Amino acid sequence: MKITTLEELFIHDLSDVYSAEKQITRALPKMARAATDEKLIAAFKLHLEETQGQIERLDQLVESEEGLKIKRMKCHALEGLVEEAQELIESVEAGPVRDAGLIGAAQKVEHYEIATYGTLRALAAKLGYTKAVKLLGETLEEEKATDEKLTLIAEQQS
Amino acid sequence: MKITTLEELFIHDLSDVYSAEKQITRALPKMARAATDEKLIAAFKLHLEETQGQIERLDQLVESEEGLKIKRMKCHALEGLVEEAQELIESVEAGPVRDAGLIGAAQKVEHYEIATYGTLRALAAKLGYTKAVKLLGETLEEEKATDEKLTLIAEQQS
Repeated sequence: MKITTLEELFIHDLSDVYSAEKQITRALPKMARAATDEKLIAAFKLHLEETQGQIERLDQLVESEEGLKIKRMKCHALEGLVEEAQELIESVEAGPVRDAGLIGAAQKVEHYEIATYGTLRALAAKLGYTKAVKLLGETLEEEKATDEKLTLIAEQQS
Repeated sequence: MKITTLEELFIHDLSDVYSAEKQITRALPKMARAATDEKLIAAFKLHLEETQGQIERLDQLVESEEGLKIKRMKCHALEGLVEEAQELIESVEAGPVRDAGLIGAAQKVEHYEIATYGTLRALAAKLGYTKAVKLLGETLEEEKATDEKLTLIAEQQS
């Protein structure tokens, strides 16, 4: 079945980001264990909690409009990003250099989400999904804040 | 050989983005052919030219500091992003809905690059690579401008 409407495209992108968030909840504890900087470990742990909240927000979003559902699919982009983070952990010794690499890997994930939630919010606005626009905007702001926090942690590293 | 220094991490990330840019030069013509909106097609074609310029800038960067080199590697994240764009093209009929999906796919790629060039510029600054900071900053601004342009095209779509 080909996608032919904006609503179907919205459901496709929603399902993609749902898979992405689930993958992120599995990756963040590994990234926290691989880090040594206390602030970075704390940031990964906090973002894990936020991510769980973002998944709940996606569940709420689906309830907010008739006809919305999450389809089972695998976000391949996140798979690639997680693979990169894993390779980084394996190829860099624990310490400040690996921490710098982990910050970069995490910011790539944040930017993936910033782009995805930005697109989803724009589609929701076109479709007149008022509640979804609000929920997606909340998550978008959290992702941007996490990205900025990671930049600050990177700048504080010697 | 494990990575133990920031310089080695910089070379790793530089090699990763070099692979990413090469993959983008192969993906953009396909995305242009799959699009129908004239402005979107023009944006993809212009960004292909910019991407070729960005690869040249990476070559210049390598020349600017003793010891820098590009290693052969495959950027798995870009592979995933390209796979997503390809699936989108296959699953959405040509027209405004596919165009909306292509804009989203392209913005994910832009954000991958924004995160990557941001990290590279920060690492170059720490390493005292003045010329590299300038070159990476130029590309970073181009990627941000492309992302904003794509947002404008999305907003103009009916």
